[in-house]
Amino acid sequence: MKIFEYTNINETRQILKRPVQDLSEIAPLVNEIFTGIKKRGDMALAEYTLRYDGAKLENIRVSPEEIESAAGSISPGLKEAIKMAMENIELFHASQKTVPRMIGTMPGIYCWQKGVPLERAGIYIPGGTAPLFSSVLMLAVPARVAGCKEIIMCTPPGRKGEINPVILYAAKVTGVTKIFKAGGIQAVGAMAYGTETIPKVDKIFGPGNQYVTAAKQIAAMEGIAIDLPAGPSEVMVVADETAEPSFIAADMLSQAEHGTDSQAVLLTTKKEIAEQVALELEKQKKDLSRKEIIDKALEVSAAIIVPGMEELIEVMNDYAPEHLILSVKDPEGMAGEVVNAGSVFLGNYSPESVGDYASGTNHTLPTNGMARGWSGVSLDSFLKKITFQKVSENGLAAIGPYVEKMAEAESLDAHVNAIRIRNKLPLARGKSALADRGM
Amino acid sequence: MKIFEYTNINETRQILKRPVQDLSEIAPLVNEIFTGIKKRGDMALAEYTLRYDGAKLENIRVSPEEIESAAGSISPGLKEAIKMAMENIELFHASQKTVPRMIGTMPGIYCWQKGVPLERAGIYIPGGTAPLFSSVLMLAVPARVAGCKEIIMCTPPGRKGEINPVILYAAKVTGVTKIFKAGGIQAVGAMAYGTETIPKVDKIFGPGNQYVTAAKQIAAMEGIAIDLPAGPSEVMVVADETAEPSFIAADMLSQAEHGTDSQAVLLTTKKEIAEQVALELEKQKKDLSRKEIIDKALEVSAAIIVPGMEELIEVMNDYAPEHLILSVKDPEGMAGEVVNAGSVFLGNYSPESVGDYASGTNHTLPTNGMARGWSGVSLDSFLKKITFQKVSENGLAAIGPYVEKMAEAESLDAHVNAIRIRNKLPLARGKSALADRGM
Repeated sequence: MKIFEYTNINETRQILKRPVQDLSEIAPLVNEIFTGIKKRGDMALAEYTLRYDGAKLENIRVSPEEIESAAGSISPGLKEAIKMAMENIELFHASQKTVPRMIGTMPGIYCWQKGVPLERAGIYIPGGTAPLFSSVLMLAVPARVAGCKEIIMCTPPGRKGEINPVILYAAKVTGVTKIFKAGGIQAVGAMAYGTETIPKVDKIFGPGNQYVTAAKQIAAMEGIAIDLPAGPSEVMVVADETAEPSFIAADMLSQAEHGTDSQAVLLTTKKEIAEQVALELEKQKKDLSRKEIIDKALEVSAAIIVPGMEELIEVMNDYAPEHLILSVKDPEGMAGEVVNAGSVFLGNYSPESVGDYASGTNHTLPTNGMARGWSGVSLDSFLKKITFQKVSENGLAAIGPYVEKMAEAESLDAHVNAIRIRNKLPLARGKSALADRGM
Repeated sequence: MKIFEYTNINETRQILKRPVQDLSEIAPLVNEIFTGIKKRGDMALAEYTLRYDGAKLENIRVSPEEIESAAGSISPGLKEAIKMAMENIELFHASQKTVPRMIGTMPGIYCWQKGVPLERAGIYIPGGTAPLFSSVLMLAVPARVAGCKEIIMCTPPGRKGEINPVILYAAKVTGVTKIFKAGGIQAVGAMAYGTETIPKVDKIFGPGNQYVTAAKQIAAMEGIAIDLPAGPSEVMVVADETAEPSFIAADMLSQAEHGTDSQAVLLTTKKEIAEQVALELEKQKKDLSRKEIIDKALEVSAAIIVPGMEELIEVMNDYAPEHLILSVKDPEGMAGEVVNAGSVFLGNYSPESVGDYASGTNHTLPTNGMARGWSGVSLDSFLKKITFQKVSENGLAAIGPYVEKMAEAESLDAHVNAIRIRNKLPLARGKSALADRGM
């Protein structure tokens, strides 16, 4: 981790530039695989699974026996931990429910908004060495709280067609309806367009590598809803003199172990804190199992020393971190200054690890500065907010003349007539009847 | 409008297929213009404005004098109508505000979610013959209710550099902060990446033609938030024997006049209703000013006769209409069956026109079946939902062992250590300390 003194926001932006993912090179491959899935469905899926996962599958759908056998292999301690995390996630996401309120905007005109669950949520869970079962909890639990009828999950199989048992167990206890052995671009394509076996879903959720991200984005361009375009994970720790350098270093390392392109940033008013954190990083990383990943991630990490609170708040919101840890004397006060962030951790005893797994908040969050315009996954991500309006005959008589005026000014006379015919007025006769035309 | 008898859902899907927009052909042009804007800012913008709008601009930003002069040219009647619409839109969107609730998911662990306004909302308003000032109301009013600090608007100038006065007036009264003379792909690029004059925004909203839509989607792939990928507008009218055919025809015509690719669908259990609507369409369209557009739009429109309520509800939700009018005996009951729709109009006196302008609901809605996974624009579209968590020392001691268990199972030992170092436990020593490894 290099230490920089703040001079101006533009220089800081350069220092904190995220490692860029260029997805455009992947687009042709995504289009090729999507075309295969659209045209040949399961046949194509099986070929891609053989090609990319090295697995020749007997069945695409995970069988009840496979799920039961997985459950048997999980330790009681891990089962208990998963149960506790599920309960917290459920409690927090259930608290986000809203009740439709009917608003009388004018006499005889009533409007309301209702959250209606997605019928079919699709969840992608990556494979690989570290089984991300926590993402199953973070996506399937809110889907169930929202009331989605079906929760579809795709995850890549190993060479023998096996799925990590913890992932299967997490899917079982969170109420995932159907689990399929499919990974990468082809899994996204299958959920976006449907195959004989894998149903087309209404929205695709979940983390993934650059291939999965590119596939989700291209599916989104074709009209399939997605949660977020995921990028490399990142954390910013904001620290003053009350922070504990060993805690900060531990949090930065927990970010760094996610991947070589994970960025961990320390933002502080105290140079001494940055120097102590640098020493702690060296000390703590020695014994970690993912040391090589961590070393590379720390190369894209930095500490920024700011002269005062004004610059600190500016850099914090300009960076728009996915995870933001506030290790300061008055974390609540500082939280009030946060404009752009995914999830915020207040005080010295709120490490990111807690939010990653179990506090109750969601860990699917906007990366790469997207927190400026995007929110993380929440209950709302599994709901469509449909609006309704009911107008009475008297209500229409009252609002009608105003609507006519505006429709005339937009030169839309059929819109005028939809009002007039109900209010028993003579219909507009094309251009001639539009009084305000041309303004 | 052709009339079809329902046989099965797949055939109905074929009949109701929306006119497809292929945006991939536009992508190279978008990339070229975006590159120009990124590299040369205002200079490039001026060149594209000359090329595509035929305007040689003296200033990109609309001056206070231009705005004042526009206000002077608006009739008192139209001003009053705009005021009324604004008040209804404001009332309904303000009712969508939520108050952060702190949830104690476990003793010592508190989580909450807070809606924080976008700092800078960007609004695109198309030019052309029909000035869509209603879209200014639908986007700038919720942005102001949300509390956005800046509301930036781009709209293409005419050949003399002029902007339609009603658009300027609507922008003025809704509190748009800065208005720029920029249209098409270059306007989207300017708001996405910023130029010397036009600031980079956090999210881009607003309707537009296929060029604007492609530009918004490509900007979204590069990480800029957008409201919705907009497609051609559409309405579905659901009617039983209590419906009034002349009203239905008027509503279908008001949809058809939007554009040649606008789809108007009648879904009914009564063949007689469909036949009467067909006659009414012929009768009413004669005198409308946009007759040619309407004729083409009616070619992509249809009536579907379903045998019963079950098929009716299936087709309704399968089509997932942007606008859904329920002209039935029990519209409230039918509204309860709606799973996929943008905005719903209940009863014979709730024409789409009312929602397009003034009832209070938003008219920026998901088209092309996207209502399955997307919501229309609402107050939330202008907010980021940031989550917060605060864990006490005792809270961490309680939740810590569970988090460790899960982090171990995901092979993330730095995550384990972020807990242990705070709970004053010996740090995990790489792989050897991870008890559950391998499961």
